[in-house]
Amino acid sequence: MDFELRILGSSSATPLANRHHTAQVLTIGNQLHLIDCGEGTQMQLMQYKIKHQRICNIYISHLHGDHYFGLAGLLSTMHLQGRLSPLHLFGPPGLSEILSLQFKYSGTNLSYKLIFHELDTGCYKKIYEDKQITVHTIPMEHRVPTCGFIFREKQKPRPLIKERLPSYLTPPQLVRLKWGEDIMDEQGNLLLANKEVTLEPKRSRSYAYCSDSKYKPDLLPYLRHVDLLYHEATFTHDLAERASQTFHSTTKQAAQMAASAEVKQLLLGHFSARYKDLTPLLNEAREVFPRTELAIEGSIFSVQERLPEL
Amino acid sequence: MDFELRILGSSSATPLANRHHTAQVLTIGNQLHLIDCGEGTQMQLMQYKIKHQRICNIYISHLHGDHYFGLAGLLSTMHLQGRLSPLHLFGPPGLSEILSLQFKYSGTNLSYKLIFHELDTGCYKKIYEDKQITVHTIPMEHRVPTCGFIFREKQKPRPLIKERLPSYLTPPQLVRLKWGEDIMDEQGNLLLANKEVTLEPKRSRSYAYCSDSKYKPDLLPYLRHVDLLYHEATFTHDLAERASQTFHSTTKQAAQMAASAEVKQLLLGHFSARYKDLTPLLNEAREVFPRTELAIEGSIFSVQERLPEL
Repeated sequence: MDFELRILGSSSATPLANRHHTAQVLTIGNQLHLIDCGEGTQMQLMQYKIKHQRICNIYISHLHGDHYFGLAGLLSTMHLQGRLSPLHLFGPPGLSEILSLQFKYSGTNLSYKLIFHELDTGCYKKIYEDKQITVHTIPMEHRVPTCGFIFREKQKPRPLIKERLPSYLTPPQLVRLKWGEDIMDEQGNLLLANKEVTLEPKRSRSYAYCSDSKYKPDLLPYLRHVDLLYHEATFTHDLAERASQTFHSTTKQAAQMAASAEVKQLLLGHFSARYKDLTPLLNEAREVFPRTELAIEGSIFSVQERLPEL
Repeated sequence: MDFELRILGSSSATPLANRHHTAQVLTIGNQLHLIDCGEGTQMQLMQYKIKHQRICNIYISHLHGDHYFGLAGLLSTMHLQGRLSPLHLFGPPGLSEILSLQFKYSGTNLSYKLIFHELDTGCYKKIYEDKQITVHTIPMEHRVPTCGFIFREKQKPRPLIKERLPSYLTPPQLVRLKWGEDIMDEQGNLLLANKEVTLEPKRSRSYAYCSDSKYKPDLLPYLRHVDLLYHEATFTHDLAERASQTFHSTTKQAAQMAASAEVKQLLLGHFSARYKDLTPLLNEAREVFPRTELAIEGSIFSVQERLPEL
């Protein structure tokens, strides 16, 4: 199953000609999750041939324009192209009010059901769950109410080693084995140890999206051991004071979070327009956390569903 | 003095990868007038190296998203880049309410004065005037309140033929000559005929922007003899019924307006996404009005300030 992040925009508030406002698409299996939706997101989706009709959920981290000014346009285009399947929209208080006002004046009556979930940006909370994943908010510290999001695959079933399975096993017992249980007899004695007939399950992958925020080490418990951590890095570390004043982070702070949380890979984004060349930001972060990459337009980060070695 | 139109977007509601939502920049002298502001306009301005700080007035024709979803982003970027000079914004009722709500939730307190002029889209009315130009609304017929705009240079002074000027003329008399008056003596008798000492003035150029509308021949009196007429042409004429249902126009209808109004040049835009190749739309219009061009991204239309032949 795919677990793949595509970056559509890497710019902070002021865009450049080749640097777009924040938006990312996380593909998990057949489901597309759109995270933030800066101006021009629908054009960027076209650019990378991503079908917006496949997006099931949209998550807006906060109401600064560079994170959501493309939303009304994308929702309108979905409508104009006859979308029928419901769309879940997660966002801070105010977002629904803004969209409602825009659609009122445009006389738009959406062709599909838009289900708005108002977020409490100040806490860690499960906001979405399906058979495969959960999504939680994580509280950021920015100039307006802001949260990040953690996407986690649920625990996966243990593959059965068919040639070792005794023939007496019933279908319910097979299911229990897949989920890690031993098989006991009626007296409660061990009949069949799980580890004798199952393999380790596939990995449950995770992605943490830390939107605009000042350096906030109390997030660490939430981020621990995630596969991918996106963390904003608006400034190089010489501008740490400016970062703090504007409630943003530096390269080194992002890298420090990644190192302390022992994540597998760090992605940097939300770059100030002052940096035409991003190499210094990357280098600065890699000094602290070597497994760092730039989350620039078009880049793809896949997490493999590797089976552990037998 | 420049009188030049630059096209930033030619798409109707659904954009294509290379076709942007409606926005145009009309340069008159040193003043830049932005007409409509679809999503991505600030990126298109960068693409064509047009400095948004030079924009003095913005005109929004109606509140369908493809005509204004780039506005909040552009206004935000002007703010973030420290604009100080006031900006005049002309738009339909509701626009100010939408922007105020967006800026409330983003905590934005603009660095410059945004002066909002609410338009009565249902009438022909002067909405702006300075030393050089006037701007009038023209009423469109669309699904929501919509107007077009006519930009006209004011009458220009008549050049004086210096070698023919009698030496007795006073400065006030020279000014009167420039503005076409004859010089009379105290008894009211002709002393000097204007045409003896002046040339024809430079042309006063004009541009009419007809935004989304069904075919509306009662606009003709406003459009007569304009230099440039932009008219939406969402559909080819075989889809005239679809055009009428959606309150849009066809190529032939746009061309018929141009022919009846005897304009100098017709520009077609606002193309449906169904047309990947726009040649058929152009050809169809040219059958009715040969001086037709496609108003596609990046194209420039200049009107010359020619002196008439001596």
